[in-house]
Amino acid sequence: MKPLKNDRYLRALLKQPVDVTPVWMMRQAGRYLPEYKATRAQAGDFMALCTNPELACEVTLQPLRRFKLDAAILFSDILTIPDAMGLGLYFETGEGPKFQHPVASHRDVENLPIPDPELGLGYVMDAVRTIRKNLEGEVPLIGFSGSPWTLATYMVEGGSSKAFTKIKKMAFAEPKTLHLLLDKLADSVILYLNAQIAAGAQSVMIFDTWGGVLCPRDYKLFSLQYMEKIVAGLTREYEGARIPVTLFTKNGGMWLESIAATGCDAVGLDWTIDIADAKARVGDKVALQGNMDPSILYAPKERIEQEVADILAGFGEGEGHVFNLGHGIHLDVPPEHAGYFVEAVHKLSKPYHK
Amino acid sequence: MKPLKNDRYLRALLKQPVDVTPVWMMRQAGRYLPEYKATRAQAGDFMALCTNPELACEVTLQPLRRFKLDAAILFSDILTIPDAMGLGLYFETGEGPKFQHPVASHRDVENLPIPDPELGLGYVMDAVRTIRKNLEGEVPLIGFSGSPWTLATYMVEGGSSKAFTKIKKMAFAEPKTLHLLLDKLADSVILYLNAQIAAGAQSVMIFDTWGGVLCPRDYKLFSLQYMEKIVAGLTREYEGARIPVTLFTKNGGMWLESIAATGCDAVGLDWTIDIADAKARVGDKVALQGNMDPSILYAPKERIEQEVADILAGFGEGEGHVFNLGHGIHLDVPPEHAGYFVEAVHKLSKPYHK
Repeated sequence: MKPLKNDRYLRALLKQPVDVTPVWMMRQAGRYLPEYKATRAQAGDFMALCTNPELACEVTLQPLRRFKLDAAILFSDILTIPDAMGLGLYFETGEGPKFQHPVASHRDVENLPIPDPELGLGYVMDAVRTIRKNLEGEVPLIGFSGSPWTLATYMVEGGSSKAFTKIKKMAFAEPKTLHLLLDKLADSVILYLNAQIAAGAQSVMIFDTWGGVLCPRDYKLFSLQYMEKIVAGLTREYEGARIPVTLFTKNGGMWLESIAATGCDAVGLDWTIDIADAKARVGDKVALQGNMDPSILYAPKERIEQEVADILAGFGEGEGHVFNLGHGIHLDVPPEHAGYFVEAVHKLSKPYHK
Repeated sequence: MKPLKNDRYLRALLKQPVDVTPVWMMRQAGRYLPEYKATRAQAGDFMALCTNPELACEVTLQPLRRFKLDAAILFSDILTIPDAMGLGLYFETGEGPKFQHPVASHRDVENLPIPDPELGLGYVMDAVRTIRKNLEGEVPLIGFSGSPWTLATYMVEGGSSKAFTKIKKMAFAEPKTLHLLLDKLADSVILYLNAQIAAGAQSVMIFDTWGGVLCPRDYKLFSLQYMEKIVAGLTREYEGARIPVTLFTKNGGMWLESIAATGCDAVGLDWTIDIADAKARVGDKVALQGNMDPSILYAPKERIEQEVADILAGFGEGEGHVFNLGHGIHLDVPPEHAGYFVEAVHKLSKPYHK
């Protein structure tokens, strides 16, 4: 492996000095890029793209050719683990992900296997190895997984949900079943992320997209507790390099202290919290990643730059900030606006670093 | 008008002593009740039900016949004002509300009229008068409106939304157009709610369903500022009675201090905040309404009672709590579970009052 040329992203996660604030974008490999759409059309469908290591590598690298991003993120789906457990992931045109065999009973949960990452999820590890090799040390590679709670919502609901009726019924009427499911998922995520690290991921991130639909007590009980188990089970140093871990709970702004206390290195912020407040609350413990409203990318260049300036001023001086959007980039954003954003972070952040 | 027999709800909003904690449920008149479905079928469709004062009164009273609720709430839709502005509200089966003529340009906004409540919205005022008369003083009647920001999201998106693409484009690229729209909506809501008060509403509530999709700065700029304007413009005393005002922003838990500073009497809480924290932060300024996760109503009776006990203990002693769900009751909840909830609040709250 070639030595890393740009390690700003890893340094910022560890609160070490950097020259400018590093930046990447959630869903930076995605449908807002015409070259992504072309590769996806070539693959056939979304899962064909995920399971083809060469094409997954190609779309991972596409945004790096356009923008001076400080990290690459594995192109994959958060639902690979439940699919490897045998639930039968599929996508219907114009709709979200669905499962052919949702989890409905205690017996269903007991029967779920814990997937061996190099067998059922070997295509992901092949993608990680291919991307890492093709990155040639330009920037670090981020591996990722969905959180146990977030994976469980899709597995129990059978797909996307608005009211989370089925999983909440399980949580309140059959909590033992849900805890067994979450515990199996936590064990699976530990194996999965450690395999990604062994395959070449230099940092890992856990996406808890739906933790924010729980009350504070239930968030700790059903989501955070299992992310904490994962953090404790992860490979934190690999071949002499520290592997930073970032936790991101959408709509988790009220629970930052609890998230920061899990032992993670960094906390991802959506845009509903002021980054200055977040830093005051947990900035001594963890690095922060975020947090521009992705819709700002619809605005003209000057407005994007102003927003970047405001967030940089909110974080202020000191290390431990990875700039990002507060959620994935929207599919109808003009690519050049993403470019204005990345450039603005590098240009405007210089005065905040020594 | 007959004198009010049960004024617990109004007293709690004003932080006056009560014998037990008052309780009502958002969407208490709704599809979880078979008698509601029968009346709605009789009306034809949803808007036919809203625009028929006798049937709107009938569904308003239905939950009060089943449960010992401490308040009635006007049965209506939050989108009556945009409809009266000429946008053409309609509902497609299985989908949310839609508008035939969404607002797209500055000229569209300039051309919007501010509806006279007794003309274009006369059916709402007739419903308020009919309900108030038929309540015969049993419990107070709550009037309501959507917040300007929430109404604007539907008017600009043309219906429900997930990413709020169009209105955020307007917010960040054409803020003057959006502010003009929000200001017209604030003026319209003031007239609308004051007309409801004159027609018999004894308290009013403003629902800001979508304020939580904004960053803290934009929440204040595009949502809270206009709710504050409304609070300042409302009739706060009518025929010798104080008319309490409740503001509810879904996912607004991080901004309670700002909401409490608008001059409202009470703040509605969703279930993502611990009510003990909310009381510690703003309990000296305002009453609190909330905040059980509506999904708890899927659980068995004992679990519902335990949750009610936990929330009562969280609020603790002292006045200023109206018990409610943190959002509308789900349509597939068994009605008897709603009954367990209401009974539990009255039974378990006695020790907290003198």
